[in-house]
Amino acid sequence: MAKLLITNIGLLATPAGREAKAGAAQGDILKLENAWILAEDGVILEVGTGEPPMTEPGNGFEILDAGGRLVTPGLVDAHTHLVFGGFRQHELADKLRGKTYLEILAAGGGILSTLKATRAASEAQLTAKALAALREMLSFGVTLCEAKSGYGLSLEEELKQLRVVRNLQGTQPAELVSTFLGAHAFPPEYKEDHEGYVRLICEEMIPAVAAAGLAEYCDVFCETGVFTMEESRRILECGLAHGLKAKIHADEIDALGGAQLAGELGAVSAEHLIAVTEKGIESMAKGGTIACLLPATSFYLGADYAPARKFIEAGVPVALATDYNPGSCPSLNLQLVMNLACLKDRMTPEEVLTAVTLNGAAAVGRAATHGSLEAGKRADLVIWNAADLDFICYRFGSNLVRTVVKGGVPV
Amino acid sequence: MAKLLITNIGLLATPAGREAKAGAAQGDILKLENAWILAEDGVILEVGTGEPPMTEPGNGFEILDAGGRLVTPGLVDAHTHLVFGGFRQHELADKLRGKTYLEILAAGGGILSTLKATRAASEAQLTAKALAALREMLSFGVTLCEAKSGYGLSLEEELKQLRVVRNLQGTQPAELVSTFLGAHAFPPEYKEDHEGYVRLICEEMIPAVAAAGLAEYCDVFCETGVFTMEESRRILECGLAHGLKAKIHADEIDALGGAQLAGELGAVSAEHLIAVTEKGIESMAKGGTIACLLPATSFYLGADYAPARKFIEAGVPVALATDYNPGSCPSLNLQLVMNLACLKDRMTPEEVLTAVTLNGAAAVGRAATHGSLEAGKRADLVIWNAADLDFICYRFGSNLVRTVVKGGVPV
Repeated sequence: MAKLLITNIGLLATPAGREAKAGAAQGDILKLENAWILAEDGVILEVGTGEPPMTEPGNGFEILDAGGRLVTPGLVDAHTHLVFGGFRQHELADKLRGKTYLEILAAGGGILSTLKATRAASEAQLTAKALAALREMLSFGVTLCEAKSGYGLSLEEELKQLRVVRNLQGTQPAELVSTFLGAHAFPPEYKEDHEGYVRLICEEMIPAVAAAGLAEYCDVFCETGVFTMEESRRILECGLAHGLKAKIHADEIDALGGAQLAGELGAVSAEHLIAVTEKGIESMAKGGTIACLLPATSFYLGADYAPARKFIEAGVPVALATDYNPGSCPSLNLQLVMNLACLKDRMTPEEVLTAVTLNGAAAVGRAATHGSLEAGKRADLVIWNAADLDFICYRFGSNLVRTVVKGGVPV
Repeated sequence: MAKLLITNIGLLATPAGREAKAGAAQGDILKLENAWILAEDGVILEVGTGEPPMTEPGNGFEILDAGGRLVTPGLVDAHTHLVFGGFRQHELADKLRGKTYLEILAAGGGILSTLKATRAASEAQLTAKALAALREMLSFGVTLCEAKSGYGLSLEEELKQLRVVRNLQGTQPAELVSTFLGAHAFPPEYKEDHEGYVRLICEEMIPAVAAAGLAEYCDVFCETGVFTMEESRRILECGLAHGLKAKIHADEIDALGGAQLAGELGAVSAEHLIAVTEKGIESMAKGGTIACLLPATSFYLGADYAPARKFIEAGVPVALATDYNPGSCPSLNLQLVMNLACLKDRMTPEEVLTAVTLNGAAAVGRAATHGSLEAGKRADLVIWNAADLDFICYRFGSNLVRTVVKGGVPV
């Protein structure tokens, strides 16, 4: 259908604008009662209140009655490891039965087991598995989703993972943004030759990924025992030189300084940030870097939560994402992340909404076209089984989505 | 249909027996690969492995192919406040914006606002609202559910709540067990006359509830500022004298000694138990009282988790439940409770399965007929989108139910 009119919106709640919101503006939510939205060819033409411009279908119009419910922009999940082989459920069980992480690793567990399963899977198998996850994300209200590589860790296997993301683009309703994360871990082949792997990334992988147009972002896991600050800088600078914008897994466990690096390089986002320092926050504020927080990972690991309020106070925009992956966060429920952001990060429902819509869109370079309900933006939205924003932050554990509309089409 | 054959069960996982399991036995799960279940008129006739007794439908047989998936008993939610008016989403938001609990209470919030909304609602309205919750619980795999009164707090209003539970019994697939919780709080009318309210409970409410057959259990909220140990004992003893078995909200915030009282009275279960003492645990072990733990409430309130491992070590059977209510746990997702029990209470997946099936059934007096998959028990079961038990404890935030079968009927 060409045109869609959504009527009878009890409450329309949305951030406004075409860039990430920081500080007090993070909680600025436009709230319109008794509203309507008119969309054409997937784009919002007009948002209004009171009597809508037409109330009878026909002439290519479809009318969708929101039944007096809450409507928000479609959710954006700005940090996922969408494509991977296998799951690792037995590691949780083993841990609960008393096995240490090192014992699990020695038995072939941990990230290397996902590496093995991902390499063993065909592109078609990985596509089918990621598609199922994406469909479930969509059911939770996610209409735009980032997807990282990083379980292949060789030129061919990383390209395979990235092709899976490309396969999924346009063949199902959710939109994808692709991130190259060859620097996720050192593969067994380079266990004793870190310099060799960094050179492989910089000299072969990044040029190949960029040439094939398979990613928009380059990410690196900067952490003790993984990539050093020095290696992270080399990789991100190489990515930037090849047109891949920077993201960085920063200061998750140890405060190595990844947040400072992110600010210095003008990275679009830094992720995790549980151990971030004041200096790191300052650097991010200066560099315009978005803090992408992942509270479901803290929840699953029993770790601390990132200092969301400090970022907001310092004027750093906060986005929230799932971190969906088979090791540290086997969940793709962004609504649960919203609950956690309130309960554990002490963010208000308004700040949370901005974090999973406009700021999430900004973290994947789509703030000009996605993440808010206003004329000219994509008609991506959620009709909720809720009357207000507080309700979806409070009523945890249920999927409160009534209907998802993607590009003007109810899906 | 009269007969149902469930074939192609990849893994059947169930506790066994007709009473609560404690200590090491809490983790004793029978695991059968390549299994089948034959049921007739809602009751399991036979459980087997390998070739099933018949493989063609007809003659009143229905065949349900489990597709190689995991099958467990239907889940039991042994502690819910199913029936209430309204929700209290704005209290979370107010709290996050800096309001104290006393300010919220002064503004008409807290339990008194639910009291008001419940009293204002008609029996039909409350029935419709509880029915929606029960349907969602069923979608999460819950086939047997306890429901407490306690938001009426007058003779008429408590009876109204209990009638709602009776209305729902048999008119939808989930089974209900009713608990009278007039001693949930002191109503405003008795704010200054606690003795008067305790007498009302003992002299009017309990006799009326028992005479009408509207509850099987009598429960009391024994806590600082609510019902004292002395009042709790009087109320529970009065309930017992009228044939209402005892449950008690014990030692949630302060260690008043509710767990000791539970053991002394031979209460079927004690609930919450975050602050329980060694003495309380001992008393419960002696009295055969089940510990009904409610980790989703700890999660929502940011409180500590009950010492599940101590109960298991002391030989006290552990059940797990949601505590679904509009104040301290606005969630009815028992799967999330299972995840929390692993992650926060350090229970193994096997112990958790027993806690939400056989031990839950025992906590509502149904262990002889419910809570395990064996000949003679109700054919209540869940087919999961999972291949093993570890997976459903690991893959949090998704509803992993494929199909629920209640009384031999796929629902």
